[in-house]
Amino acid sequence: MPQISQKGSAMPASPIRKLVPYAETAKQKGRKVYHLNIGQPDIPTPQVALDAIKNNPLQVIEYSHSAGNESYRKGLAAYYKTIGIDITHNDMLITTGGSEAITIAFMTCLNPGDEVIIPEPFYANYNGFATQAGVVVKPITSSIKNDFALPAISEFEKIITPKTKGIVICNPNNPTGYLYSQEELEQLASLVKKHDLYLFSDEVYREFCYDGNSHFSAMQLPGLENNVILMDSVSKRYSMCGVRIGALITKNKEVINIALRFAQARLCPPSYGQIAAEAALNTPKDYFDGVYNEYIDRRNFMVEALNRMEGVYCPTPKGAFYTVVKLPIDNSDRFAQWLLEDFEYNNKTVMVAPATGFYATPGLGANEVRIAYVLNIDDLRGAMECLEQALKVYPGRTL
Amino acid sequence: MPQISQKGSAMPASPIRKLVPYAETAKQKGRKVYHLNIGQPDIPTPQVALDAIKNNPLQVIEYSHSAGNESYRKGLAAYYKTIGIDITHNDMLITTGGSEAITIAFMTCLNPGDEVIIPEPFYANYNGFATQAGVVVKPITSSIKNDFALPAISEFEKIITPKTKGIVICNPNNPTGYLYSQEELEQLASLVKKHDLYLFSDEVYREFCYDGNSHFSAMQLPGLENNVILMDSVSKRYSMCGVRIGALITKNKEVINIALRFAQARLCPPSYGQIAAEAALNTPKDYFDGVYNEYIDRRNFMVEALNRMEGVYCPTPKGAFYTVVKLPIDNSDRFAQWLLEDFEYNNKTVMVAPATGFYATPGLGANEVRIAYVLNIDDLRGAMECLEQALKVYPGRTL
Repeated sequence: MPQISQKGSAMPASPIRKLVPYAETAKQKGRKVYHLNIGQPDIPTPQVALDAIKNNPLQVIEYSHSAGNESYRKGLAAYYKTIGIDITHNDMLITTGGSEAITIAFMTCLNPGDEVIIPEPFYANYNGFATQAGVVVKPITSSIKNDFALPAISEFEKIITPKTKGIVICNPNNPTGYLYSQEELEQLASLVKKHDLYLFSDEVYREFCYDGNSHFSAMQLPGLENNVILMDSVSKRYSMCGVRIGALITKNKEVINIALRFAQARLCPPSYGQIAAEAALNTPKDYFDGVYNEYIDRRNFMVEALNRMEGVYCPTPKGAFYTVVKLPIDNSDRFAQWLLEDFEYNNKTVMVAPATGFYATPGLGANEVRIAYVLNIDDLRGAMECLEQALKVYPGRTL
Repeated sequence: MPQISQKGSAMPASPIRKLVPYAETAKQKGRKVYHLNIGQPDIPTPQVALDAIKNNPLQVIEYSHSAGNESYRKGLAAYYKTIGIDITHNDMLITTGGSEAITIAFMTCLNPGDEVIIPEPFYANYNGFATQAGVVVKPITSSIKNDFALPAISEFEKIITPKTKGIVICNPNNPTGYLYSQEELEQLASLVKKHDLYLFSDEVYREFCYDGNSHFSAMQLPGLENNVILMDSVSKRYSMCGVRIGALITKNKEVINIALRFAQARLCPPSYGQIAAEAALNTPKDYFDGVYNEYIDRRNFMVEALNRMEGVYCPTPKGAFYTVVKLPIDNSDRFAQWLLEDFEYNNKTVMVAPATGFYATPGLGANEVRIAYVLNIDDLRGAMECLEQALKVYPGRTL
């Protein structure tokens, strides 16, 4: 029997999906499982996008341009202009989800053995994308003690080596909900410039900024045109995770030209997804107002409920729809599995994502879990009740 | 300015797409360009698939399972049963096109520096996928002199080294239209078994077999359950290239389990595409009869027209909808560009794919082009007229 590749053996299992079998078992027992574990919003996709799919006149579902339909790219460039990002349709590739934007960016810019610095906790799939590209992730730890602020630039300097080729940020952050300030980004910019690094900026939660904070994009940093690679997606913006449409955006012409070769090899992004995404550009403002209000309500409800529980600390996330919360538990992996296997409250339980999967440093996140507040308030209330009861009886409680 | 990766620099430009700017120039001059260069059929997508998209009830376009919707995988397993391939829905991953099936298969099974043997001419994007995985393609040349039959197994033996990890076949073949016989596959099987190799079998043109020949799948080879990786796609079967739905199929449990990790990192295949592909499983038989008759007519018309031209030789393809044809020309890259830049006949011209891009051995294919007979007979007639006239006046004519 031929062997599996080294890359395959090294490929990490998803920290979220590995709990799925336990959730299935819980459901088979007739239990309701509140899914706080995955960023799958319950928000309806904009009607304009759904309608565009239903009314599409296509008789032959053809390949599109490898860089994506030009009409969509032009529309997307116009969207970016409205938020202060000055690019044209030639500065982007439409990708199959934000995921593909990251894999193509890594393959285009990084060699096997190169190092990228990522503030942890970070989106767990970055590990998988790095493994695919043979790239080494060097974490720099942000802490719940200061609500996951960007670590000091001096901390970055300490771990930069000749192999360091880039920095990856996610802003607003998944999993912490942290929103980087313009000042923090400017500090990063000076570091990036000094060491001639790539700055890979994942901004898929751009529309989810709360409390009057506005989003400052890495694309708005002056003088970094050849360094910044923006990775974007429509999944969260329009609650259409399944259309698999993202974008790789940069003013660096060489990167775009080479990235296009990777895009050509896989032919094109999904046609229906592009139709939905292009139509979604016309989503009325009140849709976003409604979504914003809904998430603010959910966040406030959740943060308050969590911080009322004894031994629990939840920072107030300023963006995205996640929070990393500190719990009085011994081991978040064990706790998450126990919730599904051994716990129920009124025949209900909760699925959370152990934070260990979001740290690269071994041992970190053992008393933290990521919660996605993607459920309506009623379900969120039920989930918080379950969690509160669970913490009271969990055998591995530490406080 | 940070550097491009070595992989990026090595990434080949698509041999088809690099001519696109010349085609655009021809169109700007008001010329009609017959596209024989790309496998984009003009055949309508089955109505059941189009209707399923129009009638879908989804309000939130959610992520699907990373392996693809279970209902679709079960339906697909039933389809394979009807064609003599005995697999279950757990033996497959739904992928984003056949392209992703290949990239995930390569990443799962092959290490950088490993060698795969591919009979040339071969589908040009295999080069790109191999470059992405850091894998070395070792071509074994099939020749138009014997209509591109599989080279003798003794020829394969000659180039097998300790680094050889797999063989890639495309059956029916793109670009040659060659259909491997059961006997040829059994010869390959003994070689694969002897050297404990992977056999990557790209069978996306399975439904396109002509002249009473039936398709024999690598999945039907006994005793090769752990060696064979089937890479499939709905793009050609149902003329829906843009939905980006394919599949990676194997009885090798370890490969499926590891491949799933790569699939999880990119979250899921496109939701709308899966809806269309699942519905397409119910495409009525008369659709395929119509498609079959259409392609037979096109093929026969084209082969006859080509072989009537002086100095031209076109084998009769037994499958797919391509042929590699020998022309009396000095250089197929120059010829293809000249057709678009300098030639017109009644204000029309033809776009063909130089065969050089389908060979890994330098110099081969200089007097061959690939033709996709994806146009209706009227357009095909116009295209053949253009080609005949062009060959009469092409300055680099050799005969």
